Amino acid sequence: MNVRIVLYIVGWILQFESFFLLLPAIVGAIYKETKMLICFAVACAISLVAGLLLKLLKPKNTGLYMREGFATVALGWIALSIFGAIPFFLSGDIPNFEDALFETISGFTTTGASILNDVEALSHASLFWRSFTHWIGGMGVFVFIMAILPLMGASTMNLMRAESPGPSVGKLVPHVKETAKILYELYILVTVLCLTALLICRVPLFDALSLTFGTVGTGGFGLYNASIAVYPPHVQNVLTVFMILSGINYAVYFCIIRKKFKDALSIEEVRWYIAIICFSALAIMWNIKHLYPTLGETARHAFFQVGSIITTTGYSTTDFDLWPQFAKTILVILMFVGACSGSTGGGIKISRLVILFKAFKKEIQTLIHPGMVKKIQMDGHTISHETIRSTNVFISIYFVIVFASILVLSLDNKSFGTNFTAVAATLNNIGPGIEAVGPTCNFSSFSVLSKVVLMFDMLAGRLELFPMLFIFAPSCWKKY
Amino acid sequence: MNVRIVLYIVGWILQFESFFLLLPAIVGAIYKETKMLICFAVACAISLVAGLLLKLLKPKNTGLYMREGFATVALGWIALSIFGAIPFFLSGDIPNFEDALFETISGFTTTGASILNDVEALSHASLFWRSFTHWIGGMGVFVFIMAILPLMGASTMNLMRAESPGPSVGKLVPHVKETAKILYELYILVTVLCLTALLICRVPLFDALSLTFGTVGTGGFGLYNASIAVYPPHVQNVLTVFMILSGINYAVYFCIIRKKFKDALSIEEVRWYIAIICFSALAIMWNIKHLYPTLGETARHAFFQVGSIITTTGYSTTDFDLWPQFAKTILVILMFVGACSGSTGGGIKISRLVILFKAFKKEIQTLIHPGMVKKIQMDGHTISHETIRSTNVFISIYFVIVFASILVLSLDNKSFGTNFTAVAATLNNIGPGIEAVGPTCNFSSFSVLSKVVLMFDMLAGRLELFPMLFIFAPSCWKKY
Repeated sequence: MNVRIVLYIVGWILQFESFFLLLPAIVGAIYKETKMLICFAVACAISLVAGLLLKLLKPKNTGLYMREGFATVALGWIALSIFGAIPFFLSGDIPNFEDALFETISGFTTTGASILNDVEALSHASLFWRSFTHWIGGMGVFVFIMAILPLMGASTMNLMRAESPGPSVGKLVPHVKETAKILYELYILVTVLCLTALLICRVPLFDALSLTFGTVGTGGFGLYNASIAVYPPHVQNVLTVFMILSGINYAVYFCIIRKKFKDALSIEEVRWYIAIICFSALAIMWNIKHLYPTLGETARHAFFQVGSIITTTGYSTTDFDLWPQFAKTILVILMFVGACSGSTGGGIKISRLVILFKAFKKEIQTLIHPGMVKKIQMDGHTISHETIRSTNVFISIYFVIVFASILVLSLDNKSFGTNFTAVAATLNNIGPGIEAVGPTCNFSSFSVLSKVVLMFDMLAGRLELFPMLFIFAPSCWKKY
Repeated sequence: MNVRIVLYIVGWILQFESFFLLLPAIVGAIYKETKMLICFAVACAISLVAGLLLKLLKPKNTGLYMREGFATVALGWIALSIFGAIPFFLSGDIPNFEDALFETISGFTTTGASILNDVEALSHASLFWRSFTHWIGGMGVFVFIMAILPLMGASTMNLMRAESPGPSVGKLVPHVKETAKILYELYILVTVLCLTALLICRVPLFDALSLTFGTVGTGGFGLYNASIAVYPPHVQNVLTVFMILSGINYAVYFCIIRKKFKDALSIEEVRWYIAIICFSALAIMWNIKHLYPTLGETARHAFFQVGSIITTTGYSTTDFDLWPQFAKTILVILMFVGACSGSTGGGIKISRLVILFKAFKKEIQTLIHPGMVKKIQMDGHTISHETIRSTNVFISIYFVIVFASILVLSLDNKSFGTNFTAVAATLNNIGPGIEAVGPTCNFSSFSVLSKVVLMFDMLAGRLELFPMLFIFAPSCWKKY
């Protein structure tokens, strides 16, 4: 392990975070929250100094192999979260450091699970920072620095591979740096479109910014205890559309920009994604139709909630924990399904499930025709044996983490439904679950041990398990 | 698909069932239950005639390929259950046919999940048949007919492969027929030992027979509403020992009989099995120690319940639904772990989990050393690529079935914990779950649709998914 290069890049991350921290400081200044202005400025300074110190370690050997890539991404996200939690703690907006860290990890990983009983009591600067962390984490901070920095050679692909969601990372264009740049340009485009749409709907600027960050980053932190229920129906519908758009593989937007409409429409994963959303929302509508006066209102809540959960955003327009069990179970299952790979959403990802079904079909066919040699295809390409194996291992390990986490949480003696969905909601970066972690509740009542496990789950979910597990493997830290 | 050979073998199965049905008829005669005697005699006759009719289809082509093997086993078990349910229904002991079928499938698959509110109201003949189905299903009815019938050639391996539990079927000796014979001899030996031990403990003969069938077959149907709580502590401890022995890979007993003690001790799966049992029971003891007056009683309940759940038997000595959530969660996780492959128990099986962990370790090592070629080893043998792929596909499909089943059950609007553990308890062939399907409750309150799903889950669990899924694949029924 080339530790110097790992710490050097983490230094870059912290330096960037210090710039990001300037924005909430400015918000504090605008809203005349002097204390917040000072706290964010201090956090900004601490982050900058720490970053500069780490950057002094500039390594001679700039080789960045797979293991350095994984370790850098894992440690980078942990560092980002620790330094991002400082202003919450310093200002007293969140008095315990573990809670501040939970809230920050929840922000950067675009989970949106909160430990706050009263969100509305926070300062404007803190509310802005909470939402802005979603936007930073959405497309990924490493993708960001790759897009703008002249980092070391072609091996930065290993950073992208470790941070990007999905079973296999497709480069949009031959160069990683170019790909990262295009991804961020598209991300900013979607962000601007969402913000404009909300402003047209006469949402105040501060709210519109927070909603945009939460929606485009598929995060889910809101400004009000009642989440999105405070906004009028047409705003909710706009958010539904942008949540669903943010869960789509960004390769689609790339194809559209390049006017390759046929390619955009032919992506198998996206077709499944749309089909699952429609089917789930219709099933829920049938199940909850007696709860709302009109079909329109039923459809609005059903599509909003399905869009919010499958994209792993986690906003809510209504307390879906009061829905019948069938509707709730659909939402719990969607928590695991997740969005498309290459989007800002979390979860297992639809492409993995498609690969899984194809592998199963092949398994059955092999039983019927034992001699048959058949390759699994997707979007016209053969899926490599490595991808299939890695997908299967991913799903198996995924459930091992789910059960191990539930076991630790059960020490708090909450109900099985609570523990199960608390883990599902954090590992899949969603936010709310059902029962004691339902949309009107929060995660404050868990013990410190449970919170640590849930923080791990949020990071493991955002980084697709391997980087976070990897740093616990002793052989990872061995010298060359 | 060679349908004639499939039906021909199913004919054999039914003919054997008619012999099995004679035993409860005799029990009816002994206890002077004339109505039951008649009902079982009628069921015996129906089964015999149906079997003989199917055997008229004797095929010219006796080739038994993989797909015939799978279809035969799936259809054989379904036929066995339908004809086995007749006496319950005819006698009025279980007035609905779907409930009678549920109870019979639960018996043959060694699940032990009941729809009866009052077990004690049943006739002796029905109670005997309920328990005896566990014994028939425990080692497998196809293994039985292979052991005693001169079936068609060497291709009967495909029947054994489809019925036997575990990721790969090891033949104890070169010939399948011999292997089947040895398995049944060992099975009978364990049965006799268990029965003798219970009789020495002064358990009445009828109770001892029922307990033996339920324990050795890892079934779990009891004679009393309070399950095993009615028996004195030393009987409970004897059952704990025999449950745990029944969850061990029978290859161990084969090695012991052949005096290969070193081989017996070296089986990796069995060592993990013992370690998991001890670790789980100790953790539960720590968690429930405040509930019982003495350490001895705490240990008795903890080890009994752990043994009962990991071997997928499902007996209970206490209402573990009243235990704290941590202890309950350990039991829920053990439901999925299951017993050893090659035992009479169900679940995912420990060998699959061991393979999974090794595959994961390999995946991490491949990330560190991309060029590395490493084989996964178990018990000194290299695990074939096919076994690993099939194990991974198994676990992924397993969870797809879990979630699909929970979704259907959720239409009944019970709690998430109830639905989740009802599926876990049937798919893993255990019996009771927690909440509304806890050890003092039963499955009678589910809708017919939910019961059908749970029946499918019981059969799919016992036959390790593939045969039951296979018969729904249209290509399975294509002509050659």
